[in-house]
Amino acid sequence: MSLDLASLNAATRADFVAALGAVFEHAPWVAEAAAGGRPFARVTDLFAAMREAVEAAPAVRRLALLTNHPELAGRAARAGTAAPDSLAEQAAAGLDRLSEAEYARFEALNAAYRDRFGFPFILCVKRHGRASLLRTFAARLESTPEAERRAAEAEVLRIAAIRLDALVAGEGSLQTKGRLSTHVLDTVTGRPAAGVAVELAEIVSESEATIVARARTNADGRTDAPLIGGRPVPIAAYELRFGLGDYHRAAGLALPEPPFLDVVTLRFGVAEPEGHYHVPLVASPWSFQTYRGS
Amino acid sequence: MSLDLASLNAATRADFVAALGAVFEHAPWVAEAAAGGRPFARVTDLFAAMREAVEAAPAVRRLALLTNHPELAGRAARAGTAAPDSLAEQAAAGLDRLSEAEYARFEALNAAYRDRFGFPFILCVKRHGRASLLRTFAARLESTPEAERRAAEAEVLRIAAIRLDALVAGEGSLQTKGRLSTHVLDTVTGRPAAGVAVELAEIVSESEATIVARARTNADGRTDAPLIGGRPVPIAAYELRFGLGDYHRAAGLALPEPPFLDVVTLRFGVAEPEGHYHVPLVASPWSFQTYRGS
Amino acid sequence: MSLDLASLNAATRADFVAALGAVFEHAPWVAEAAAGGRPFARVTDLFAAMREAVEAAPAVRRLALLTNHPELAGRAARAGTAAPDSLAEQAAAGLDRLSEAEYARFEALNAAYRDRFGFPFILCVKRHGRASLLRTFAARLESTPEAERRAAEAEVLRIAAIRLDALVAGEGSLQTKGRLSTHVLDTVTGRPAAGVAVELAEIVSESEATIVARARTNADGRTDAPLIGGRPVPIAAYELRFGLGDYHRAAGLALPEPPFLDVVTLRFGVAEPEGHYHVPLVASPWSFQTYRGS
Amino acid sequence: MSLDLASLNAATRADFVAALGAVFEHAPWVAEAAAGGRPFARVTDLFAAMREAVEAAPAVRRLALLTNHPELAGRAARAGTAAPDSLAEQAAAGLDRLSEAEYARFEALNAAYRDRFGFPFILCVKRHGRASLLRTFAARLESTPEAERRAAEAEVLRIAAIRLDALVAGEGSLQTKGRLSTHVLDTVTGRPAAGVAVELAEIVSESEATIVARARTNADGRTDAPLIGGRPVPIAAYELRFGLGDYHRAAGLALPEPPFLDVVTLRFGVAEPEGHYHVPLVASPWSFQTYRGS
Repeated sequence: MSLDLASLNAATRADFVAALGAVFEHAPWVAEAAAGGRPFARVTDLFAAMREAVEAAPAVRRLALLTNHPELAGRAARAGTAAPDSLAEQAAAGLDRLSEAEYARFEALNAAYRDRFGFPFILCVKRHGRASLLRTFAARLESTPEAERRAAEAEVLRIAAIRLDALVAGEGSLQTKGRLSTHVLDTVTGRPAAGVAVELAEIVSESEATIVARARTNADGRTDAPLIGGRPVPIAAYELRFGLGDYHRAAGLALPEPPFLDVVTLRFGVAEPEGHYHVPLVASPWSFQTYRGS
Repeated sequence: MSLDLASLNAATRADFVAALGAVFEHAPWVAEAAAGGRPFARVTDLFAAMREAVEAAPAVRRLALLTNHPELAGRAARAGTAAPDSLAEQAAAGLDRLSEAEYARFEALNAAYRDRFGFPFILCVKRHGRASLLRTFAARLESTPEAERRAAEAEVLRIAAIRLDALVAGEGSLQTKGRLSTHVLDTVTGRPAAGVAVELAEIVSESEATIVARARTNADGRTDAPLIGGRPVPIAAYELRFGLGDYHRAAGLALPEPPFLDVVTLRFGVAEPEGHYHVPLVASPWSFQTYRGS
Repeated sequence: MSLDLASLNAATRADFVAALGAVFEHAPWVAEAAAGGRPFARVTDLFAAMREAVEAAPAVRRLALLTNHPELAGRAARAGTAAPDSLAEQAAAGLDRLSEAEYARFEALNAAYRDRFGFPFILCVKRHGRASLLRTFAARLESTPEAERRAAEAEVLRIAAIRLDALVAGEGSLQTKGRLSTHVLDTVTGRPAAGVAVELAEIVSESEATIVARARTNADGRTDAPLIGGRPVPIAAYELRFGLGDYHRAAGLALPEPPFLDVVTLRFGVAEPEGHYHVPLVASPWSFQTYRGS
Repeated sequence: MSLDLASLNAATRADFVAALGAVFEHAPWVAEAAAGGRPFARVTDLFAAMREAVEAAPAVRRLALLTNHPELAGRAARAGTAAPDSLAEQAAAGLDRLSEAEYARFEALNAAYRDRFGFPFILCVKRHGRASLLRTFAARLESTPEAERRAAEAEVLRIAAIRLDALVAGEGSLQTKGRLSTHVLDTVTGRPAAGVAVELAEIVSESEATIVARARTNADGRTDAPLIGGRPVPIAAYELRFGLGDYHRAAGLALPEPPFLDVVTLRFGVAEPEGHYHVPLVASPWSFQTYRGS
């Protein structure tokens, strides 16, 4: 369900805070402070008011914004005692399904981070794949306390922006949503390739990949919905897999065994979670190409 | 070392047989019979004479050609008591490095095959990757005795042709050698991409791949030697891997992290072991294409 | 201006005929007859009723449908005495701007055709480029009277369908409109190429080309409007011209003089006037590709 | 006919000068001076010796090297009284087949140039297409006397290098020869496209093009000889034309009329006359691509 900006502008202060109090984890005071700035013409104005409330808050409160955050794959998350949004976000990132070894790795990183900086490691997990999350964690452990405080606050704001964008409809989206799409063209017939099985995997490591989406191309050679949409595209390496050989066999083409092209795989990386990654496949039984489209 | 046709034409019958006696496994009589047909203008004529000797032989002898062959990954091969050529061919196919489970699988297939047909399963292993070898084995178990006798003899002739082609230099190659090559073009500079790390892997199964070759592109964007050459290209699925991201970084291009294209992988299949598979990569940091070239 | 189906269903018979009487040249009786079939749920139903009226008409009337048509580039058209729709259609096809030699050519063809078949040559000129029009004219002169009567009537129906489609809005378009579009992708930056000058020319002959459209790509690398849209794409050979060199220079790239790619030209043919021809350019300063997209 | 370096090293001074005296127009003294430097290990050493002779010559002699050159399309060339090499070079550049208007244009440029600099305009015409030649002529008219004297001498040395490279075989080619080649790949069959008609035209202006070469692709999809080879590739804009539609029809493919791709044209520019321009066509009936290959 999504609220609209007009009704938030019209709502009582109490209802306004009730609606947006969870945007900043355990910090309804941010919504409280922003409420005074109503009416807001655009969602971006509302978010700006919240940011200003954070920046205007006394140092202790700002620090509390960080210390109140649950650790990644930490006790609160495992016990389910973290805030619902946090639980959902961590689950979406697969942090609720780690192996014991991975949990141990996070325990160690969390402890080292907390020792060094005095607050939990905070990252907008919706913007990172598993590998990127661990790479970032390790990198930020090397940072300085002051730089890290700023980095953590920036992540708190990113988390809040995504929550707000999902919550409130209206002018001036916060543009927290990216898109990953594909399109298959058949250069033998000059037509879109319909009925091609498509699989998107996130490459976690040399030996581990996680299927993110499965679809089949429609009459226009596209998938009915983007492979990833309505949310940030996690920073990660991906592999798109296309059942091209099956498509050609179904079309009645005579292929050698094994065919020159059977399952075509395209490996690519995503670095801008809010960007649009259009990765088409232009193919015949003996050639294929891809590029970052739009 | 390779003999030339002229000296074989001039050699004594004994030397001729000594030189070519092992072309047909445990069957020097084939060379013996062919010796009478000298002189041969071309290697193909020599091979034709050997084939005719086989086809003219009494049924018992022809059958012995099959029964004398060692099983694949069988006792003789494991004990090293098979003919040197066979040992080398099976080793090249990795049959000397199977897991116990794989050996067991071969034992079972070999036993089933011998029960059904009365002679060992014979396949020109130099023409097959691991997956193709097992697929073919399973398929041929379903065949009829007569068809299978012909299939086995055809494989014996293929094995002999490869051995003879490797052994004798001269007019009229038997064309048993295929080639797998690549070429990397940089569409940002319009120049060949030099210094790109290239890796060729044979895809044995979803979870298993074997590195077949590693190379780096030279100033012309090619590898100094073909990735596979001077022998049949085993029937298999392959993956070519190109260190494109490292190449672009080395060229000083600013890439996102992770780059859109880092290690580019091209999956393709080979169905004609004696063919030339030229698989180029035409790429920029944001696009790539391949096709079967020549 | 475009009428909607609902109001046509509600209109008086007189208004209905007044609105649609010109759909069939000089034959308001077709609309008259169709009026009785109201209400129509879809535009296709309305057109079907008109076709049936034609098919149900006595032979004399059906023939009159043909004889009443003006000749292409004929006296009526030159004198401006043909029906307004016909004048507009012939003008759109450039038939009002022929050289004297071309007029003479048409005079001769028209005369030969009328002699042979007893009615004027009828072609839905909106579906043909100049070369295709003359090719078709010459070909149909070779036809038989009966086949030609059917061909002429089919063209009358095509002309009527396009007129009706342009005139009436509502469910069930007659799909008489095709589209020709392009899209320029820059593989050096991985972004759409904005600000590229695009020119579309119809290739009339080896030595003659007519500019059909000029545009510049927008931020998404597309033209704001299709190069041809809202009407059939005339059957013809075309050349798309892209100012790629200027685009790269504007982007600050150092190009040789002359550049490897300056004005890139793509030649292609259109055979389905009602189809969508998407002809993208995926390019770097040293490579380009195109394909029929969607 | 081509001399070899060894015999030139062994020749009498008189024979040496007889053989190489014409390398520098009307200036056998250059060969005369170089003769003393024998023996030369490489052709590049021989040329270096000639260049040194020029640079060591008194100003008057160096200037004479320029003043002795015939004008481009000038009286000496038209009367055939220029040196044979010059006549051949100008003819190869088409300067012996100019229209009266073009001759007039050259007359004017030649006169203006001679007035301004006191010696004829000198350009190594083998390195320039017609448009580039005129562009360069106009540009150099704007130069300063000293810069122009150096530019003219540099051209004299280029002319000499090409003559020497054509004349003498041996180690250390002067690399004055470029190459323009193509290759057609069929992505429907995965094979080279054999029997494709190829035409190379030099684009002189919007309205004028000159056919430079015609060929047909062989079984490997290449032309038996490069389209331009064994000489510099003139600086110019070119168009490659491929009879792709005829190729597909001959292969029995059903194509629309007109086909989407019939005569495919590739426009590209050459800026490095000594470079290798490999311009392949990778195509199906509905897609094609090219790039600068190697």
